[in-house]
Amino acid sequence: MQHRVKFTGHLIFIGFGSIARATLPLLLRQDHVPVNQITVIAPVIEKNIWFKERGICFVRKALTEHIFTQTLDRFIKPGDFIVNLSVEVSSLALMTYAFSKGALYLDTCIEPWAGGYDDPSLDLSHRTNYALRYQMLGLRKKLGNGPTAVVAHGANPGLISHLLKAGLVELAVQLNHRLPQNREGVDWARLCMETGIKVIHFAERDTQRSSRLKQDDEFVNTWSVEGLINEGHQSAELGWGTHERTWPTSARRHRFGSRNAIYLERPSATVPVKTWTPLGGPCLGLMITHHETASTADLLTLKDQQKLIYRPTLHYAYHPCNDALLSIHELIGRGWQSQHQQRILNGEVDSIGADALGVLLMGHELNAYWFGSVLTIDEARALLPFNNATSLQVAAGVLSGIVWAVENPDRGIVEPEQMGYERVLEVARPYLGTLVGKQTDWRPTGVVPKSSQDAAADDWQFEHFTRF
Amino acid sequence: MQHRVKFTGHLIFIGFGSIARATLPLLLRQDHVPVNQITVIAPVIEKNIWFKERGICFVRKALTEHIFTQTLDRFIKPGDFIVNLSVEVSSLALMTYAFSKGALYLDTCIEPWAGGYDDPSLDLSHRTNYALRYQMLGLRKKLGNGPTAVVAHGANPGLISHLLKAGLVELAVQLNHRLPQNREGVDWARLCMETGIKVIHFAERDTQRSSRLKQDDEFVNTWSVEGLINEGHQSAELGWGTHERTWPTSARRHRFGSRNAIYLERPSATVPVKTWTPLGGPCLGLMITHHETASTADLLTLKDQQKLIYRPTLHYAYHPCNDALLSIHELIGRGWQSQHQQRILNGEVDSIGADALGVLLMGHELNAYWFGSVLTIDEARALLPFNNATSLQVAAGVLSGIVWAVENPDRGIVEPEQMGYERVLEVARPYLGTLVGKQTDWRPTGVVPKSSQDAAADDWQFEHFTRF
Repeated sequence: MQHRVKFTGHLIFIGFGSIARATLPLLLRQDHVPVNQITVIAPVIEKNIWFKERGICFVRKALTEHIFTQTLDRFIKPGDFIVNLSVEVSSLALMTYAFSKGALYLDTCIEPWAGGYDDPSLDLSHRTNYALRYQMLGLRKKLGNGPTAVVAHGANPGLISHLLKAGLVELAVQLNHRLPQNREGVDWARLCMETGIKVIHFAERDTQRSSRLKQDDEFVNTWSVEGLINEGHQSAELGWGTHERTWPTSARRHRFGSRNAIYLERPSATVPVKTWTPLGGPCLGLMITHHETASTADLLTLKDQQKLIYRPTLHYAYHPCNDALLSIHELIGRGWQSQHQQRILNGEVDSIGADALGVLLMGHELNAYWFGSVLTIDEARALLPFNNATSLQVAAGVLSGIVWAVENPDRGIVEPEQMGYERVLEVARPYLGTLVGKQTDWRPTGVVPKSSQDAAADDWQFEHFTRF
Repeated sequence: MQHRVKFTGHLIFIGFGSIARATLPLLLRQDHVPVNQITVIAPVIEKNIWFKERGICFVRKALTEHIFTQTLDRFIKPGDFIVNLSVEVSSLALMTYAFSKGALYLDTCIEPWAGGYDDPSLDLSHRTNYALRYQMLGLRKKLGNGPTAVVAHGANPGLISHLLKAGLVELAVQLNHRLPQNREGVDWARLCMETGIKVIHFAERDTQRSSRLKQDDEFVNTWSVEGLINEGHQSAELGWGTHERTWPTSARRHRFGSRNAIYLERPSATVPVKTWTPLGGPCLGLMITHHETASTADLLTLKDQQKLIYRPTLHYAYHPCNDALLSIHELIGRGWQSQHQQRILNGEVDSIGADALGVLLMGHELNAYWFGSVLTIDEARALLPFNNATSLQVAAGVLSGIVWAVENPDRGIVEPEQMGYERVLEVARPYLGTLVGKQTDWRPTGVVPKSSQDAAADDWQFEHFTRF
């Protein structure tokens, strides 16, 4: 283990939802970064005795566009660290603020101010994660060098980009394939192309459940209900592979940015897609939109000057826990009128199940290969209070992002793709359960005998993943 | 009540699944038709002690295309009644056989021989309920008059066609609208047109559940698992309304028959559609294909000579119980490879919930009106053993169909639409729980203030029901 790095600032948490409650105990028990003082600022603060007993300060305050600097000025000084785990507080505004104060920053997704996801003055293209990321890239260019601000670094987005790189290296080892290099190190896009990868899913399956049945008019999830609803209501997004021959119904291109990702004119929670994880094998995921779709589409695009050479199709494929599946079904049926009750599957003592979060690399010599973390709820709880498997994976992403930022405090705005994946995974590793690498003969058209795999290369067309 | 009709024959049940087990106790307790002897012929016979104790005979035998006449000849004589509640036994073959023997007949859907739903030699159009019905209509023409054979008479198809007529009369009363007549009685198509109905859903919601969680690799349902999988895997079908302006993606016309219904090139269980029932209001149903879609599309089509004047859009919209929703999701994710375990939610003692089965009449002056049966599992069990709410609604359809056939023994092949809806509902009524007629302001585009309803007539386009 590296030496404990020097960090003498305060940690200021924005938000006190399921992820903040999961991350704080982890911060208190780790020994990578000294934790001198923690303050939590949130509009609603409930059940915080355990946290107060451990010296954490609480400020009950909603941060809005007009008053947030005034509030934060009371707490933030140079060298502090802002950890933004809120909803409806603009990531870009907080990043700009942190930069101006000389403070470090981390969030788990690029969040707009309240209403930003549904702003009627914006067209669908401008309400995507692609568009939010485009704004962030503009800010990064404008701000340039300065205190590190880690963008979108929970489990996914976040750790998933590091698992992608680790999985690609594992696959290359199995294929006995040398890692191609470019100026920055491994040329990940070229590696994907050379190994023949056509499609990548960020494939997650959550099998956590308790004996307490979901009620009518109740949204049950293993993490933030608002978070899932927000991203589920945004348009579906995907990196669009160079092998694709059929343009999807309702797909649209953006008119700005790298244009490496496209979107569908359908809420992402309404787009089912066939996928595979080691938890039960083939399953039907939802093509929930995520930051990593756009950022890894850039990472894995290969160009010769302006000419596009290669890109895999890539997107998130998420089988949430059964109760969340039912909750989404109910929500869509209600015309997206939120249920009156919410519950996060966390407190139930008799919960079982696991969360498998990884990358499914498809179309190469081994057919398909899943690499990622399989964490059971029992393992999560044995490690930390206030956690289930999902929240601990996110908390591990937050912790490793904080550690990396403290160790690399002057990089300006960075996405997971610009961070060292080995160091990040080293810090996160104790909280990820079993790291699984597993080959499978599964493909969206069914399992194919190995001999005929070459002939069936067309099986990896996007249309097969969405045809039932 | 009418006098007990004369029936001296034997009842021969084909199949001993959940519906047979639900119907037999009902037959034993009713006093419309004398039950002299009942024989059950099925390939698998389990847990039948209760039934044997009540004098029912059992024959363990699978009826296949090659040996079924040989088997049945031992049991069937003129004046007997064949009740076909099996899967994978051809309805057309049994109807032909019953006709030749002078026996009465009833089934709850038109079933092909094993493999008929997935026969690779048939195109999608010929594997629809529309096509199965077309064959039946050909047989009806060929056989002509003879012993009554009631086709597709469970809850839905079956009772739902009678509830449709009763609901239309209820709506006409509320609108103070005179019932238009034609040679056969009420002109139902003209009534729909005159009242302004644009869309009709056979809208069912099942909220039954138990505390026993669905396991992975298990299909849980409140009625036949095979039955739901078979129809869920067939193409979605719908009667196509004259008000529609946008042809649905993947929709196809048939090249034979009345062409009043169309189909989508998608398995019906994969087509979600917004609908409404009094159990919880708006919800997302599945456009499961059913016999009544094609038969009521004929009933409600108005033509002037050959010219098409009017037809509503109509189809089934089914929110199965939550466990069945999850089971279908799992099944699709498995590429339609059946789960290894099956369970019918029936034996669990702590089950709660209800089944609401009715018609949702949309687009008229009152916006939308649901009419049908709401039956709780507690009510069902208080009436009869071996039942839940769903099975009792089906059993009530079977009983009332049997009674009608005995009372009208010489009509040849009849569909529900050719039967007297008042008499059928009179017999079924005691087993349907609460008959509910309920107006709602719901529409697929959201609830609209009454004043602007006329301006928003376009809200009833099919595309709005499938846009999320």
